[in-house]
Amino acid sequence: MKKHNFSAGPCILPQDVLEKASQSILNFNNDNLSLIEISHRSQPFINVMERAQTLVKELLEIPKGYSVLFLQGGASMQFLMVTLNLMKLNGKATYINTGAWAKKAITEAEKIGETIILADSSDKNYTYIPKEYKIPRDVDYFHCTSNNTIYGTQIKKFPECPTLLTCDMSSDIFSRKIDVKKFDLIYAGAQKNMGPAGTTLVIVKDNILGKTGRNIPTMLDYNTHINKQSMFNTPPVFPIYVSMLTLEWLKDLGGVDIIEKENQKKAKLLYDEIDRNPLFQGTAEKEDRSNMNVCFLLTENKYQEKFDEMCHQTGITGIKGHRSVGGYRASIYNAMPIESIEILIKLMKKIEKL
Amino acid sequence: MKKHNFSAGPCILPQDVLEKASQSILNFNNDNLSLIEISHRSQPFINVMERAQTLVKELLEIPKGYSVLFLQGGASMQFLMVTLNLMKLNGKATYINTGAWAKKAITEAEKIGETIILADSSDKNYTYIPKEYKIPRDVDYFHCTSNNTIYGTQIKKFPECPTLLTCDMSSDIFSRKIDVKKFDLIYAGAQKNMGPAGTTLVIVKDNILGKTGRNIPTMLDYNTHINKQSMFNTPPVFPIYVSMLTLEWLKDLGGVDIIEKENQKKAKLLYDEIDRNPLFQGTAEKEDRSNMNVCFLLTENKYQEKFDEMCHQTGITGIKGHRSVGGYRASIYNAMPIESIEILIKLMKKIEKL
Repeated sequence: MKKHNFSAGPCILPQDVLEKASQSILNFNNDNLSLIEISHRSQPFINVMERAQTLVKELLEIPKGYSVLFLQGGASMQFLMVTLNLMKLNGKATYINTGAWAKKAITEAEKIGETIILADSSDKNYTYIPKEYKIPRDVDYFHCTSNNTIYGTQIKKFPECPTLLTCDMSSDIFSRKIDVKKFDLIYAGAQKNMGPAGTTLVIVKDNILGKTGRNIPTMLDYNTHINKQSMFNTPPVFPIYVSMLTLEWLKDLGGVDIIEKENQKKAKLLYDEIDRNPLFQGTAEKEDRSNMNVCFLLTENKYQEKFDEMCHQTGITGIKGHRSVGGYRASIYNAMPIESIEILIKLMKKIEKL
Repeated sequence: MKKHNFSAGPCILPQDVLEKASQSILNFNNDNLSLIEISHRSQPFINVMERAQTLVKELLEIPKGYSVLFLQGGASMQFLMVTLNLMKLNGKATYINTGAWAKKAITEAEKIGETIILADSSDKNYTYIPKEYKIPRDVDYFHCTSNNTIYGTQIKKFPECPTLLTCDMSSDIFSRKIDVKKFDLIYAGAQKNMGPAGTTLVIVKDNILGKTGRNIPTMLDYNTHINKQSMFNTPPVFPIYVSMLTLEWLKDLGGVDIIEKENQKKAKLLYDEIDRNPLFQGTAEKEDRSNMNVCFLLTENKYQEKFDEMCHQTGITGIKGHRSVGGYRASIYNAMPIESIEILIKLMKKIEKL
């Protein structure tokens, strides 16, 4: 049975990408060698790395003066690297706390230096994006999380920022247009819209680095990786290759403009049904609703077992809400076809009529 | 044409592993989902992680009291983590410098605290393993590199160690029996005998941790990962799965005892030819020769072009020596069939007769 994969991440990837990825394991580049048994210093893999970097630059229209890196360690390692690379000795950083991942970033910064939380939506279980805060000028950087996977909220308008603007875009990068020149550092774990788990995209403005006065460990210094074209040590070959394939797929589709419209359409379809159907209720503030992760509850618990059973029978998978929110979470990333959302909506209508 | 892949790493993996890995990208676990699009918190992946950890414990006969982790960042990140987790504030670490990778480990430790180099084979371009040194008792740990990929040397007998014994086994783990209880911490990048690039095996004795008095960043603290069964954040799913497959393959073959004999046989075959054939000459001291990386030179440069051409025609790939040694390097890891070595030897005999 065909599955409708609403998993929050690692998550659905385009079928075409999966087929090419599978093939590359047996015979890459028609060389009768597997992608995963060739040297990362060989020309075929150097081509992959360069192509992946170029695609990121093209798709996000990244201006000159930024580097694109494929690192390891996930967003969790970036929580640390951002602080080490940007917070001056005896400096200050500012954050907004919009969910579990934002909080982990804050915790890491606090281990290193003075960390100011400018706004916090934990009072309502992170169901909204705070907007009433002002970023001070005399701090080293501001950090925010563009999309909160667990709670289904998303920053629609980034704040005016008089200091360095850094952002964790793990769960919505490549899903909508962003004005990269307004950001100084963007990072994203691959395993939502970009590829499989195991690599982390970093887009960093070169001239903000090397100014903290800190003794940064080699592997945690962005300049180490910039100076070696993201190949200081053996990179995670397969995750980078699959990211390249996914970015090619997005480019062939028409790029970020096109996918943004698709994503808006898909999200609207589902939110409209949640708002219309008396059996369902969204959990996030309407104006802050994520176009990637749609969180909702059943208004009557007695239908839960039945609805879960219907989802299971229909091949709908990965739709259980995070334990801290409950209910359901339909993650509808770039690769999610509108047909899968229509099938979910059909079930929602069906259970209403029971 | 079938290739004979002598690449130093990423390197040859068993064909059977490649086929299963390729299949998992299309349909994993017969669930009609790809391995790389399911949640790492789903039972099928938890099973993979647990199986991989169990296989490491079985194959290396790891006693109780050790944890097995699959981390990210390669050996290069371990250079840092070992020091942060084991070197006390105002403490001391000891190293031996047996090559480029050992030196990188030393450089990282020096950034953090007092680092004593007990022995150093750079005087002869790392062509031997120093043995005349004594590890002091009053230091936090001793670090060595079991096999030096670039120079083709290997520690045959580990030193008596009155402090914590740590070892980078990136290029020979699972190739020979090791007495794990003599070590306190072992780490290895996957991309030689274990799997594809993108994960790093760490075997650490639990009771040595948490004693430095340092404020260790979350992601760099081994205890973070131990406490979450190596799933603190999204792990590199595919590299871990392929590592599991490779370890299954090794177990089915009979385990480390059997592969060690195979490896000795393969290496002897090639070294015997190098020693016999007047056109070739080994670069490493005989008693320290690696059974994984066989480094050799042509004694007469005029044959180089012809030999390279013959290798190319025969499908022999990845045999060029590292630029700091020159000549040739035949990496003959676990998955390298003896037939490929016989073909290489045939060419060596052929060029002798020209």
